[in-house]
Amino acid sequence: MRYSKLFGKTIKIPPADAINRSHILLYQAGFIRESTAGRYFFLPLGQLVQQKIMAMIKKEMDKSGAQEMLSPVLHPLELWRETNRTNTTGFELTKVVDRRKGEFALGGTAEEMFVDVVRKLRLSYRDLPLNIYQFSLKFRDELRARGGLLRVREFIMKDAYSFDKDETGFKISYDLMAKTYKKIFDQLSLKTIIVESDNGYIGGEYCHEFVVESPIGETKFLTTSDGFYAAHQDVAKFKRDMVNENEPIMSMKIIQQPQWIKTMEDNIKHYKKPKSYFLKNVVYKNRITKDIIIAVIRGDLEVNKMKLEHVLNLVGQLNEASLDDLLRIGTKPGYVHSWGHKNVTYVADISLKTVTNFIGGQKEDETDSINVNYGRDFKCDYEDDIALAQPGHLSESGKELILKRGIEVGNIFQLGYHYSKKMKDATFTNFDGQLKPYYMGCYGIGIGRTMAAIVEVHNDKNGIIWPQNIAPYQVHLIGLDLQNDAIQKQAVKIYHNLLEKGIEVLFDDRIDIRAGQKFAEADLIGIPWRLLVSTKTGENVELKKRSETKTEVISIEETIKLINQ
Amino acid sequence: MRYSKLFGKTIKIPPADAINRSHILLYQAGFIRESTAGRYFFLPLGQLVQQKIMAMIKKEMDKSGAQEMLSPVLHPLELWRETNRTNTTGFELTKVVDRRKGEFALGGTAEEMFVDVVRKLRLSYRDLPLNIYQFSLKFRDELRARGGLLRVREFIMKDAYSFDKDETGFKISYDLMAKTYKKIFDQLSLKTIIVESDNGYIGGEYCHEFVVESPIGETKFLTTSDGFYAAHQDVAKFKRDMVNENEPIMSMKIIQQPQWIKTMEDNIKHYKKPKSYFLKNVVYKNRITKDIIIAVIRGDLEVNKMKLEHVLNLVGQLNEASLDDLLRIGTKPGYVHSWGHKNVTYVADISLKTVTNFIGGQKEDETDSINVNYGRDFKCDYEDDIALAQPGHLSESGKELILKRGIEVGNIFQLGYHYSKKMKDATFTNFDGQLKPYYMGCYGIGIGRTMAAIVEVHNDKNGIIWPQNIAPYQVHLIGLDLQNDAIQKQAVKIYHNLLEKGIEVLFDDRIDIRAGQKFAEADLIGIPWRLLVSTKTGENVELKKRSETKTEVISIEETIKLINQ
Repeated sequence: MRYSKLFGKTIKIPPADAINRSHILLYQAGFIRESTAGRYFFLPLGQLVQQKIMAMIKKEMDKSGAQEMLSPVLHPLELWRETNRTNTTGFELTKVVDRRKGEFALGGTAEEMFVDVVRKLRLSYRDLPLNIYQFSLKFRDELRARGGLLRVREFIMKDAYSFDKDETGFKISYDLMAKTYKKIFDQLSLKTIIVESDNGYIGGEYCHEFVVESPIGETKFLTTSDGFYAAHQDVAKFKRDMVNENEPIMSMKIIQQPQWIKTMEDNIKHYKKPKSYFLKNVVYKNRITKDIIIAVIRGDLEVNKMKLEHVLNLVGQLNEASLDDLLRIGTKPGYVHSWGHKNVTYVADISLKTVTNFIGGQKEDETDSINVNYGRDFKCDYEDDIALAQPGHLSESGKELILKRGIEVGNIFQLGYHYSKKMKDATFTNFDGQLKPYYMGCYGIGIGRTMAAIVEVHNDKNGIIWPQNIAPYQVHLIGLDLQNDAIQKQAVKIYHNLLEKGIEVLFDDRIDIRAGQKFAEADLIGIPWRLLVSTKTGENVELKKRSETKTEVISIEETIKLINQ
Repeated sequence: MRYSKLFGKTIKIPPADAINRSHILLYQAGFIRESTAGRYFFLPLGQLVQQKIMAMIKKEMDKSGAQEMLSPVLHPLELWRETNRTNTTGFELTKVVDRRKGEFALGGTAEEMFVDVVRKLRLSYRDLPLNIYQFSLKFRDELRARGGLLRVREFIMKDAYSFDKDETGFKISYDLMAKTYKKIFDQLSLKTIIVESDNGYIGGEYCHEFVVESPIGETKFLTTSDGFYAAHQDVAKFKRDMVNENEPIMSMKIIQQPQWIKTMEDNIKHYKKPKSYFLKNVVYKNRITKDIIIAVIRGDLEVNKMKLEHVLNLVGQLNEASLDDLLRIGTKPGYVHSWGHKNVTYVADISLKTVTNFIGGQKEDETDSINVNYGRDFKCDYEDDIALAQPGHLSESGKELILKRGIEVGNIFQLGYHYSKKMKDATFTNFDGQLKPYYMGCYGIGIGRTMAAIVEVHNDKNGIIWPQNIAPYQVHLIGLDLQNDAIQKQAVKIYHNLLEKGIEVLFDDRIDIRAGQKFAEADLIGIPWRLLVSTKTGENVELKKRSETKTEVISIEETIKLINQ
């Protein structure tokens, strides 16, 4: 490609609202332009990179046995009604009505569509496992688009959906995808951290995000310094340290308490014990049934609502209780009891087992209890992990958890029977002739965000430094002194020579631009090899890697060898 | 790919509503499935073909110097307002409103978007000519989708837009695209007829459709038997034969006429002359200004409203006049005069010069004129080609025009200044520093429809016959007697051998399916080379081309040579 003819040249002034390096550099180097907020044009350079990233992903997906197909992006709304998604993700859904009053959703993800096409094909157990995927446009009606390609409203996503006979089969499919993703991101020169997360469906073991550590990332996660454990705060597990295991167990007592004690801080001041010695109650309400749930936890810990919802199998259904809710069960703020309220579900965090002789649990105006021991003096309906992990907590293997930020470039997760049980006929014929619902998983990679993440990681003060395998061109050939006919001819000869060898070349053939500007533009665009032809290079070229500072004058043949290495 | 694992196998029963071969075969052979009417899933086989067609088109577009990019499919409605397209194509436009009340159109074509990105980049004359294109989803809110992939509501289109300094530059860009399209369709094994057409913008010389002749096509056009001329009926030109050039010119007279003469047929009966001897008037009204236009034409010809609109530069603005309109100019149906009505624009078809001594022109209840000679006795405000060509007319080179049908797979046309003058700042800096609007053209190919056209042309009673370069796989390897371990091993060995040689193979590895069914499925899918491994083939394979009936048993090496030829 001759740079003089390239649509989308470099520009000196960054976009007014840009903060991130990837946004600034992709704009200035001529890879992208904004249409409206969160919707981007990919200029020729940007589209080349996007295509190379997709080709790389396709190669590995195909190797894994997944099959590429393509689904429409206007999803019949009746499918979303089958799974009740019109309600649960209503805020993100963009509805389209056609002239025949047909209702559609602009696809944000395509679970229903893939289940629909799979059920149309009436598969048997012999067709399984099945993993089908597509590269297709996705639409997200985000309130705030930000950061160039990092959070957009329209983008290409590789979304894959696995269909298995059962959970055992799914686990194999899942592990295969996890490995495939690792390979993909490795080849894209992205060091990813596999972060446990929660998709709201099943959560836990089979739900991971692939995150590129970055101070500008929107994903916060907790990890150990050795990186062996990484999880979203929503799901992170941690070790509950024993608080006072050597203290002798005492008999529970109801004691008088001064009236000025209202808060945890008052308790600490009065009893001269740290937070962890006190019982804490947090009250929730089921949005649908209006049932009241009281979470009981050690005083120094916070309740993790998402964990609590999973324990109760009420994902997305809990709200914090209001004053009215408390009055309804006969109590008020600060006076909730850890046991004894009628028509209430009690859930204990496992931390209750780490303290001997708790203080609190049935505070009244002038009394409270002390020496309360969980299991002996009260017992909740559920006992589970419902506490929010915090930086400084220890992982289950005993390493300190630290908070990090990153860019989520991919995710893989278990859907289980969530869609296949809600959608009619989403079944396969098993070997015994019985119809069974599919056990599903899904696997996404956002192409534009991946591109931005690569730029966030691979750049310096002068511009982008593309990894060679996804650079828009492998060689940036700069001609200097081109007003000299002999040099002009030599540069063009080398350009064609490289093209014939199958090397992708961007040829800066402009006559009236000075060397300094050409070098600066080359650095900004970030093509891995810079070749220079000038009065000084004769039959040879001056070679420089974008990532290094040294230059050398060598023959074209040697250059080609180096590039093809 | 092992056929046992392929998502989308063949099926015996065609879709209930399918009439066209391409619809039936692409469905039965497992290439496509309908989501809702006019919106299709491309199953893995279909997606492979779609990608190969796109790669082929990309190769030729890139060779022509065009640059691929990508635009969002949600087009800000404000851009469509700039060009007034919200009104003119309102019926096809699907509007989307997001949660911030942002209004968008689901892109049907992308002229505004490309002008928008080009104006953002502020080009100069040095950047021109420029041709940028994309493969992107297009949405058409068609009232009736039909014929499988032939008329759909959502599809991938290659749309290109050229930007030139002026009309001279545009013509070069246009001719280059015409040649490129011819090459593309040749390589796709599609014999295309280049049909002159009308895009409603400028019409005439620089507007062509690439049409594959087919009895089920929706495009009707007139062509000579040698194919040198082909045009949509809307724009087709034809020779006006001289009717009676040797007759002596007589003086015009107003004569008595029996009252029973009302219609053309009555005239013919009374004067015993054919239709061509009579003057005919057709009245139109400008929808916006309410002005009246009278088209005067030889009695045996019909007025072509589109030609008339172009003559008057009133594209899309004429309606046939109503009775009220006639009364307003002081006449009534059957009594319109070929001259003399006040406040009327008269347009003559050039056929008026082919008749000596016309009958008619100022009919009243009991009189009419005879021996009327155009130019001597009356003259219209405009004289031009406004007649509708019909089968049986002669082309301008004197060959008979015949009516044909076909599938429009591509189109190329002049946009001129239509968009660049309506949209603000759609200008480049000329060599003299002045800002000048772009002279534009646009160029489309529908991918799915092209795929359907290929199937319409390349099939037999047993199924599809894919051209090798876009077949989903090059080789359909059939294993028979696979319950025999040795044959099983041999078949798998050959499968891997072919894959290693870079040959794309669909391997029918099913054990419990009989030979007859495997052959029938292979014929239906239409992969160009069928290879058979069985107890009879030993170290060799039996080779058969899909397009031929003969088989031969040869070595794998020879087979690979043949395939790679």
